[in-house]
Amino acid sequence: LSQTAPAFVSIDWGTSSFRAYLSDMRGQVLAEVSTDAGALSLKPGEHEAYVAERIRPWLTDAPGLPVIASGMVGARQGWIETPYAVCPAGETEIALATVVASAPSLGRMCIAPGVRTEDARGAPDVMRGEETQILGALAAMGGEDGLFVLPGTHSKWARVEKGRIVGFRTYMTGEVFAVLKTHSVLGRMMIPPSSAVVESEGFTLGLDAARLLARPGDLLHAIFMARTFGLFERVPPRDLAEYLSGLLIGAEILAGADGAKAGTAIGAPSLTARYRAAASRLGVRLMIAPSHCTALGQLTLLRRLKILL
Amino acid sequence: LSQTAPAFVSIDWGTSSFRAYLSDMRGQVLAEVSTDAGALSLKPGEHEAYVAERIRPWLTDAPGLPVIASGMVGARQGWIETPYAVCPAGETEIALATVVASAPSLGRMCIAPGVRTEDARGAPDVMRGEETQILGALAAMGGEDGLFVLPGTHSKWARVEKGRIVGFRTYMTGEVFAVLKTHSVLGRMMIPPSSAVVESEGFTLGLDAARLLARPGDLLHAIFMARTFGLFERVPPRDLAEYLSGLLIGAEILAGADGAKAGTAIGAPSLTARYRAAASRLGVRLMIAPSHCTALGQLTLLRRLKILL
Repeated sequence: LSQTAPAFVSIDWGTSSFRAYLSDMRGQVLAEVSTDAGALSLKPGEHEAYVAERIRPWLTDAPGLPVIASGMVGARQGWIETPYAVCPAGETEIALATVVASAPSLGRMCIAPGVRTEDARGAPDVMRGEETQILGALAAMGGEDGLFVLPGTHSKWARVEKGRIVGFRTYMTGEVFAVLKTHSVLGRMMIPPSSAVVESEGFTLGLDAARLLARPGDLLHAIFMARTFGLFERVPPRDLAEYLSGLLIGAEILAGADGAKAGTAIGAPSLTARYRAAASRLGVRLMIAPSHCTALGQLTLLRRLKILL
Repeated sequence: LSQTAPAFVSIDWGTSSFRAYLSDMRGQVLAEVSTDAGALSLKPGEHEAYVAERIRPWLTDAPGLPVIASGMVGARQGWIETPYAVCPAGETEIALATVVASAPSLGRMCIAPGVRTEDARGAPDVMRGEETQILGALAAMGGEDGLFVLPGTHSKWARVEKGRIVGFRTYMTGEVFAVLKTHSVLGRMMIPPSSAVVESEGFTLGLDAARLLARPGDLLHAIFMARTFGLFERVPPRDLAEYLSGLLIGAEILAGADGAKAGTAIGAPSLTARYRAAASRLGVRLMIAPSHCTALGQLTLLRRLKILL
């Protein structure tokens, strides 16, 4: 195979979207298709046909391509339930927990597992999809150790040592922001900014407020300022949501980094750029991983499983 | 007037309910009427007629009774906008900012003002209604100094010195709990408890988690455990909401008390009992103020204004 020949089909299937990429041996994207069909929105038994329909032209042109999916597609209500690999989990443990099956309309297909950890007090935490992205970032960036942040609805902060995820924590930052903006009193005075911005005055105000929080419960006070700053016209309406976003992201970064001064952000470019700017103001240097980490991590798994060489 | 004769009409009018009490000279309730008409849900100009209709029998029996209202009724979208008294604010400052008017169908009526403060960094905070309850608690309990908590949708923690509110902070605890339970992924596995309880295992688990939070952003992680504890069946579904409630209330108490070991809770008995139990576990002793603090505080204002003797 030349490096630009199709080598496998990479599927990133979460709760809110389906994305399939025709990928070469370097994990580069040759073609893609995406829909807003979340992995948990299909009925049991419908997943295989859904995938086959979407990627039929690719399989027609290159029969026998392996298909690998990661994300919530491996949850109990997804395609095939995959187990959680338990921390510490690197490519070996994650490949061992990957489900490999033969699907009549697809040929050989794989579903990556999630990863599970427990903190010092025995409280569990889970990820599905992020473990594969972290493997991809490790492959792309050549390291074996580090702190990784995967920002989003449920942001993950993971610590990697010697190529294995040794522990991680989920922060509900994105969802807390969304429900407060949409369903609480805070949203009433907010006006959407005129355009998407990485940094704004409101965002910076929120980051600085995050740094000054003394006790954890003060976060419940500082979010209320998204109302009082508006009431007293201290912050323009189009900056109130930015203040709230900066406050929550800032608090997440300070807790997730927990004193570390550097890390790597993985995710959509608009979001990782925002996290990098925020972290920089808070004294944490974030590198940004390539955007095709999912395919890169899946490639690592396919090689470890000897499905690709 | 004998002590059980009607002396004034006390109205507690917030965003979600209207409550009027026929009160004697001790602030005791002789009769009451309540509806779910929030002060901001009426159109401008409708408030006077609404009140007159509800309390007509009382005014017929005892014409000329003064009427006094406190709460969001004094907001811009309420009955008559009242100014904010500025901290430090005691009975003198609050009485001075009280609006006294003559309403054709009611006679003499008063609307208490809100109170406004600024923290060391100039960030504003506001209350409407709670200032009157604090005056009532001071009158009932005989002190001049202390820490007061008024739990609720937007909990207030206020510090009083020499009879004046010197500063306070709002914590969005109740509303954050409600929006997370109703609109976030956390609510999906929650089952309502079989009956209202002051303390439960889930609540205690949440309080203990609050105590162990290290950095403010860890709150965004600890709330996610209301999902993982459910996923791994560590906490029964009917205790998940209790965990979240305990976590948020515990974080609020530790931040609001900020090292203080004692305070006074003002509010509905079910809520103050819950806060007292939570605070006790966290090393803070809360006394509970009488439940008619609004009428008691309004009585203080009417006397200060020489409307009552």
